[in-house]
Amino acid sequence: MEHIKSPFRGVSEDFKGRAACYKQDWVVGIRSGFRILAPTLYIFFASALPVIAFGEQLSKDTDGTLSTVETLASTAICGIIHAILGGQPMLIVGVAEPTVIMYTYLYNFAKGRSDLGGHLYLAWAGWVCIWTACMLFLLATFNASTIISRFTRVAGELFGMLITVLFIQESIKGIVSEFNIPKGEDQSQSLYQFHWLYTNGLLGIILSIGLLYTALKSRRARSWRYGTGWLRSFIADYGVPLMVLVWTAMSYAVPNKVPSGVPRRLFTPLPWESKSLHHWTVAKDLLSVPPMFILAALIPATMVAGLYFFDHSVASQMAQQKEFNLRNPSAYHYDILVLGVMVLICGLLGIPPSNGVLPQSPMHTRSLAVLRRQLIRKKMVDSAKEGIRQKASGIEIYGKMEEIFIEMDEGHTAIITADKELKDLKDAVLRNEAKGGELKGPFDPEKHIDAHLPVRVNEQRVSNLLQSLLVGACLGAMPIIKKIPTSVLWGYFAYMAIDSLPGNQFWERLLFLFITPGRRFKVLEGPHASFVETVPFKATAAFTIFQFLYLLLCFGVTWIPIVGILFPLPFFFLIVIRQHILPKFFKRHNLSELDAAEYEEFAATPRRDRSLSFKECQEFEPSSDDDGVEVCDAEILDELTTSRGEFKRRTVSFNDRSLQVHPVQVPQNK
Amino acid sequence: MEHIKSPFRGVSEDFKGRAACYKQDWVVGIRSGFRILAPTLYIFFASALPVIAFGEQLSKDTDGTLSTVETLASTAICGIIHAILGGQPMLIVGVAEPTVIMYTYLYNFAKGRSDLGGHLYLAWAGWVCIWTACMLFLLATFNASTIISRFTRVAGELFGMLITVLFIQESIKGIVSEFNIPKGEDQSQSLYQFHWLYTNGLLGIILSIGLLYTALKSRRARSWRYGTGWLRSFIADYGVPLMVLVWTAMSYAVPNKVPSGVPRRLFTPLPWESKSLHHWTVAKDLLSVPPMFILAALIPATMVAGLYFFDHSVASQMAQQKEFNLRNPSAYHYDILVLGVMVLICGLLGIPPSNGVLPQSPMHTRSLAVLRRQLIRKKMVDSAKEGIRQKASGIEIYGKMEEIFIEMDEGHTAIITADKELKDLKDAVLRNEAKGGELKGPFDPEKHIDAHLPVRVNEQRVSNLLQSLLVGACLGAMPIIKKIPTSVLWGYFAYMAIDSLPGNQFWERLLFLFITPGRRFKVLEGPHASFVETVPFKATAAFTIFQFLYLLLCFGVTWIPIVGILFPLPFFFLIVIRQHILPKFFKRHNLSELDAAEYEEFAATPRRDRSLSFKECQEFEPSSDDDGVEVCDAEILDELTTSRGEFKRRTVSFNDRSLQVHPVQVPQNK
Repeated sequence: MEHIKSPFRGVSEDFKGRAACYKQDWVVGIRSGFRILAPTLYIFFASALPVIAFGEQLSKDTDGTLSTVETLASTAICGIIHAILGGQPMLIVGVAEPTVIMYTYLYNFAKGRSDLGGHLYLAWAGWVCIWTACMLFLLATFNASTIISRFTRVAGELFGMLITVLFIQESIKGIVSEFNIPKGEDQSQSLYQFHWLYTNGLLGIILSIGLLYTALKSRRARSWRYGTGWLRSFIADYGVPLMVLVWTAMSYAVPNKVPSGVPRRLFTPLPWESKSLHHWTVAKDLLSVPPMFILAALIPATMVAGLYFFDHSVASQMAQQKEFNLRNPSAYHYDILVLGVMVLICGLLGIPPSNGVLPQSPMHTRSLAVLRRQLIRKKMVDSAKEGIRQKASGIEIYGKMEEIFIEMDEGHTAIITADKELKDLKDAVLRNEAKGGELKGPFDPEKHIDAHLPVRVNEQRVSNLLQSLLVGACLGAMPIIKKIPTSVLWGYFAYMAIDSLPGNQFWERLLFLFITPGRRFKVLEGPHASFVETVPFKATAAFTIFQFLYLLLCFGVTWIPIVGILFPLPFFFLIVIRQHILPKFFKRHNLSELDAAEYEEFAATPRRDRSLSFKECQEFEPSSDDDGVEVCDAEILDELTTSRGEFKRRTVSFNDRSLQVHPVQVPQNK
Repeated sequence: MEHIKSPFRGVSEDFKGRAACYKQDWVVGIRSGFRILAPTLYIFFASALPVIAFGEQLSKDTDGTLSTVETLASTAICGIIHAILGGQPMLIVGVAEPTVIMYTYLYNFAKGRSDLGGHLYLAWAGWVCIWTACMLFLLATFNASTIISRFTRVAGELFGMLITVLFIQESIKGIVSEFNIPKGEDQSQSLYQFHWLYTNGLLGIILSIGLLYTALKSRRARSWRYGTGWLRSFIADYGVPLMVLVWTAMSYAVPNKVPSGVPRRLFTPLPWESKSLHHWTVAKDLLSVPPMFILAALIPATMVAGLYFFDHSVASQMAQQKEFNLRNPSAYHYDILVLGVMVLICGLLGIPPSNGVLPQSPMHTRSLAVLRRQLIRKKMVDSAKEGIRQKASGIEIYGKMEEIFIEMDEGHTAIITADKELKDLKDAVLRNEAKGGELKGPFDPEKHIDAHLPVRVNEQRVSNLLQSLLVGACLGAMPIIKKIPTSVLWGYFAYMAIDSLPGNQFWERLLFLFITPGRRFKVLEGPHASFVETVPFKATAAFTIFQFLYLLLCFGVTWIPIVGILFPLPFFFLIVIRQHILPKFFKRHNLSELDAAEYEEFAATPRRDRSLSFKECQEFEPSSDDDGVEVCDAEILDELTTSRGEFKRRTVSFNDRSLQVHPVQVPQNK
């Protein structure tokens, strides 16, 4: 329990580590110029849409007390705070589904008590936030991030599946609600006559299924056979917001004779209307909450603190996977502290708090890796061409390129490391010299630099700040956002649910159980299937059924009226179950394939020594580079990662799943 | 022009050939027992559904003069005639899209003339049928079937694509019509108030797209990973009628408050209502048609005769492809004669005539090949097992099996042929003897007979007769068929259109033009792509663009009011264009890859000597039989053929595309 004995040590180490590169975080971002807008817009759309959808869900579940305005405001405020004061700038924050669920439970509880009621709901939720913030401070102080490694993949997968199930439930509830009169509306309106209600419902089915289908199709655009690489990338990256736009436009194609409220559109007051403005003065009601309830707020606060701690750390960890070759240190402990501050501010402002989100965080790092690559590549190719023009020797050309590589890394890479990482490139240059290019062809700057450039990420704070500002700007665009039909958002919930499934091993194992034995070999063609080869079918089946029953338990808990607020508890129990009970039923090496736990010492498959280059990633592509097949950078990384943003590994090794969290965090590569 | 000099020769040869096996055609069918019901039901569903859909199209286009009752009646009557008196019993007849289009043109023409009008429409159409029948008699007499080989694949592909385009047009027109009041209906009905019309339209969109999507998915069930082989086969074979049932049931889920005519359902009088009955007395009106129109009927009759001659022969040819190893002789000339009789009867009864249909005809042969295989396999396995039990020698066991094989072929196979076809099986049996089964494993009756049994078809007339009787029985079931929503049928038209595309090389080349050069290699993975390897891209592009422009021309002609009736003309012109003009622009071997014409002598790739066995077909399956992978018989044949029922050939050879039509037909294997 070393980490409890040395309070503040993790936070202060993290702080020192990030302070050292703080100035550079801004300089690098600004120096990237206009190109930084590509990852910024990409992440903005990826994080704004769910926040709008969660806002509509919250509005439906809290009878309009909270809505899209509040979720957007929280995401923008917390995003700006995190971009400026946070530790790891790769991490993206936003209002997420667990927060929405928690706030719904709090509302249902408060609504039922005469001494709280709807008017003290936000003040009471404020108390929950205050307690949560206190707990997060404690967790940060006592270096709790070290125990994050106790949460193994089972927990992550189960949590992901629960969210998926809740999304689907939300989507179905949403579509059913399109056939009914919304609560608290005047039933005698002509809009709510049976035939218009029914028309609204039918339009709802068409719009939501239309969005779901087209969004799923456009998400897979990179593997289309048709269209140029640029177009396919654009559709894959921006197809989903584009489809929301398209279906919103389609919804205006209803004939004029249909009354204006059909199909139903986003129901939310504008940010500058009095109904929105009164939220911001919640702080003065804090002391009106009866003391008993202030104390009772501790219970939900414990749950929220646990959830946030878990979610924030996992999102951060996914954004910093080893394969990204990040150069700046992580800041798990310090980020929990900053999260506490953000929760406190949101609580006092009467808006739901934000935390680190998946899959947006790894998506952010990935898009910055593509950007970085474009920048380094251009400089190196220019230098090599210049060298060839001046008829410099191979070793001189390579020397120049290495120099540029080290310079672009801002001194994070020593010559000796660079030499190791650029070994293949060096070989390609020197081969040219030695054998006259006869054996493997002469050195071609464009082609060989492309093939052998190691992955680097444009680590900076500008893209995170800009995207948060854009989310904030959405508040000004609310009159436009209000034009989105609610049914398009229900379709979007279904899209989020289905899109999160591929790459979740639990899901893949569930499907695997239903494959007839004669066709199981087909699974081997997939990328995530090492368990098919190494784990006996019975063990896979038993483990998967256990996980499924546990999922049912977790889902069941969310349905219990007041106790439902304890829904994160089963996930905390999983730590104990995984560590002490499961190993009694499953063989160690089977368990390690089905759920790798870092804390179990185990002979791992040999770890890669060099960093991954983009080229190596192409093992997932069916083609070789010699055919002149166009494979754009984003495509390679896209095929490499799951929908959650996790790097796919065919043979899972324990060291590879390293969480980069040590008892007291030692910044890497310093 | 030898075939003109010897009239009746083809017909009489055909007649003699089929007469020789006529009795056997019934005996074999009856001896197959209850198992004959599987192919019967399969073909019944595959042919009844389009006939119902075409009936609804005809009813919409002829203001209800003709409808589903008439198309079903024609299909049943002609089917029974063909099954009993026809030549090739593999051929399935039915009312097809070209007939519906022709009858629509005739109706539109007749409607506009005061001296014909709606009441003499059917009598005039009767005259068209009489002239058509005369022309078909002439074509049969002068052995015209020999020129069928002048129609090359370009013509078949173009015609298929035109039908596809017309189906899609029909589907779109159908859905749009759901939003409008049907012609001739009382506009003041509450059903036709704007909001119910709009509801009807929205339900139409949901039902038709629902049917389209689920039908396409279920059609591909054989390659699903989930479910047992039996279930997947069942869904693939009967999924489409099942989905029509499911969506019809779903259409009854609309709330009670919706008026009963929403969604709209099949509009057709019952066969025993007076509106239907008066059609049957058309013959007595024949002489009321003004003589000028009787003469004018010659123009549409020429078109219909040309179309039917072409369609009937191609369908018959597809049902008798070489790969099926049919044992009984073909009867192209005689079948045209019988077709003439059927057209005459239909004309006099005032119903639209039937002709040979695609893809039902090759589907019929395929399903009978599966049945035959099951029968032969069982007998041979039993005999081999008996032999092993009695410790007979390998040569004895093989002898018994060969005996059974020849016996089952009803004397069509001599010992010398059988020995050649069963060579692999013989090897498997004798290997057992010689090397003690050490080298390649011992002889396993189930496995080796499965692997080396040649394709044989259960050639008989019972399945064709029974399915025609079932179509006739549908007339009694009209009160149930009337429950199908019209929008489900519009979805079915879209399904037929999309389902016909894969395997059409024209379509595949069209898509190919839009694939970015870097991804063209992906096409090579497909089965129908030899042109990608052997023809230069520019030649493929030029040929495809020519074909596309020609398609636009053909489609354009169908839109011209009265002249539209000449829409088959461009297809007849294609014979000349293909033979005399195209070879001037394209190199011979390119043309032969893009459109193989039998009449061009060309060094072909070596032709297979032995008949195909099911095992060899498995080259299309990704798996080998040694893994115990379950691959059911139907699946193998399904993967082998295109949606049109044509066998896929990766390297097209001219001899392989043999049409089995010779100047004067010589029955095969006799």
